[in-house]
Amino acid sequence: MNFVKIAKRTRAISPFRVMKVLQRAGELEAAGRKIVHMEVGEPDFTTAAPIMEAARQALGNGHTHYSNAAGLPALRDAIAGFYQDRYDVIVDASRIFVTPGASGGLNLLANLLIDPDDGILMADPAYPCNRNLIRLMGGEAQLIPVDGATGFQPAVGQLEQARTANSRGLWLASPANPSGTVIGRDHLQELLDWSARYRLHTVMDEIYHGLHYVEDLPCLLELSDDGFVVNSFSKYFGMTGWRIGWLVVPESCIELTNTLAQNLFIAAPTLSQHAALAAFTPAAMEIFETRRAAFQERRDFLYQALTEIGFSIPSATEGAFYLYAAIDRFSEDSEEFCRQMLETHGVAITPGTDFGDYQAHRYVRFAFTTDMDNLRLGVDRLAAALGS
Amino acid sequence: MNFVKIAKRTRAISPFRVMKVLQRAGELEAAGRKIVHMEVGEPDFTTAAPIMEAARQALGNGHTHYSNAAGLPALRDAIAGFYQDRYDVIVDASRIFVTPGASGGLNLLANLLIDPDDGILMADPAYPCNRNLIRLMGGEAQLIPVDGATGFQPAVGQLEQARTANSRGLWLASPANPSGTVIGRDHLQELLDWSARYRLHTVMDEIYHGLHYVEDLPCLLELSDDGFVVNSFSKYFGMTGWRIGWLVVPESCIELTNTLAQNLFIAAPTLSQHAALAAFTPAAMEIFETRRAAFQERRDFLYQALTEIGFSIPSATEGAFYLYAAIDRFSEDSEEFCRQMLETHGVAITPGTDFGDYQAHRYVRFAFTTDMDNLRLGVDRLAAALGS
Repeated sequence: MNFVKIAKRTRAISPFRVMKVLQRAGELEAAGRKIVHMEVGEPDFTTAAPIMEAARQALGNGHTHYSNAAGLPALRDAIAGFYQDRYDVIVDASRIFVTPGASGGLNLLANLLIDPDDGILMADPAYPCNRNLIRLMGGEAQLIPVDGATGFQPAVGQLEQARTANSRGLWLASPANPSGTVIGRDHLQELLDWSARYRLHTVMDEIYHGLHYVEDLPCLLELSDDGFVVNSFSKYFGMTGWRIGWLVVPESCIELTNTLAQNLFIAAPTLSQHAALAAFTPAAMEIFETRRAAFQERRDFLYQALTEIGFSIPSATEGAFYLYAAIDRFSEDSEEFCRQMLETHGVAITPGTDFGDYQAHRYVRFAFTTDMDNLRLGVDRLAAALGS
Repeated sequence: MNFVKIAKRTRAISPFRVMKVLQRAGELEAAGRKIVHMEVGEPDFTTAAPIMEAARQALGNGHTHYSNAAGLPALRDAIAGFYQDRYDVIVDASRIFVTPGASGGLNLLANLLIDPDDGILMADPAYPCNRNLIRLMGGEAQLIPVDGATGFQPAVGQLEQARTANSRGLWLASPANPSGTVIGRDHLQELLDWSARYRLHTVMDEIYHGLHYVEDLPCLLELSDDGFVVNSFSKYFGMTGWRIGWLVVPESCIELTNTLAQNLFIAAPTLSQHAALAAFTPAAMEIFETRRAAFQERRDFLYQALTEIGFSIPSATEGAFYLYAAIDRFSEDSEEFCRQMLETHGVAITPGTDFGDYQAHRYVRFAFTTDMDNLRLGVDRLAAALGS
């Protein structure tokens, strides 16, 4: 006997393929195989010591109760201070909401901004969660096919073509997943102007900010007070398992954001918030910068090694810890290719099909979230497998 | 310039009034007033020492990375063991999903189960978040007016009357908020039979389980494998700020629940999960039982004292830490009454209007989440204010 009627919206979403890769890799490891993990979008580093110490102190102080829905005032102030220090932009702390990971923030924005049948313009490929959240709200993910020609970011001309009468928002990501490309300052200004012309809201996923290897990476808030920024302590700050991120919303949305936060999650984890306060100390920042340098070294190595093997990488990684590589020389089926690399050669990578439809079978994503020794081993295995 | 179009669904939800009470109480305290807090639905106790110690150890072991979307396997097993020990019911761990608080679980279920225009039958008064989540999904909260006549729980006859062609689910809570009443075993069986007859899904909020003062409090899982259970480490286990709870879903929904968990929150906080493992140790259980006894003492005191002052309490609290009291002798406006009690007499309580519409101006909710000294002070102030 089972008569549960499942909501239609769930048909529109899909599990992350990377999780299946991860699970299968775990099974192979349990059977004694050595697997090189280049599938996971999570820094390999343990959370930095100053943050761990702050968590220990918060435990000692018994900080185990709920915080405000918007987050600890001290943390909201610290984030505002970070915007001033790093971007030279003044953001009132009242516009900042601490969320349970960027996931909590994105879910909140989807609830806040998307009516059924609203169209949201976004790149294909992109982080799969975003289009899933849009579809959960009954909205339409209006996917812009992007490739190396535009650095895997949507160009205004493409948006102009893709826009329909029901388009309501433009969701951007910089640095982007899976390509690791960024939106330059002039391009961002152009996109914002275009979005404003059609009265669309703009959401920008900045969760990889800090982990970038170009000089200038503009934050949306430098150019506009009307957009929505999603950020996270997971990536640059290395706090994935703590489930803590933040939103910046326009002043007009503060009250509704607070109401949604109460209803959707009550508050972000209190201990994580106290710990995150230490992320803005000079000692922690020094560790983050050392790690950024390590990611950059990995990127440089991997870009060259993969190119030599015969992968084609149309846009070099400018941020985040991903390389998006075409496999035309080896296969026409990225899922089958990834399966073979894992099963036969012990290298775990993610098929492009996790990130969208456009040319998804031509591409795979490499995450350089493992150390240089492992990357070298992975590259050796790929070179042997692919015969160069 | 601002052109953000807000989703219609957000018009259907409201902030928690208790938060306004809490905020105003904080302002009065900042101005030097002593406030008796009987508004907050959060145990006053700090998290139990064995859990704190487990968190310290998890920090020492560097458990700072993501867990599976479904939660740490060890914790899912421990929860399954808890069902066997405490309820003598076998639940496969694969049906258990660790969530970021019960909030995360309820949000997931709303996404999983509710299509736009689906009707969900539930009691009025009830925890406000539930009807808000239903409305966020475009569903209709089909409110059953309940009062002392049915122990503030829906009777089958009422459901039969309220059901419409679009009814799809029955959402229950036992012990209930704000009344603290429970659904007895026979009544629960009757409700489940009725729900099955019309092929409705059944969700039961059991977040106050453990904090009950009656002999027999049935868990939905004892009677059915087809329902959905929402539970939490926040209340009985005293882990509010850790944001950790769990869902039990029917076997047929395991895969979709996992996909939704990935998309909605990636995973619950890892440190909280490791800490929660210690909640099932005998040392922790002993602390919880001591605290339960303390809540029971508070309940007994408050019930008698409020009755003597002239509040009318139609259904004595059987679980949770709330008393739902009619103020007919004092006022016809629970919001104004609560405002006065706070502003003039320094006693913070929550108006019935936070929990629904039905007779909401006749009732206020007292939370006995503060110690006996404070409760005595609160009662003295109320007695003085209300002239008995």
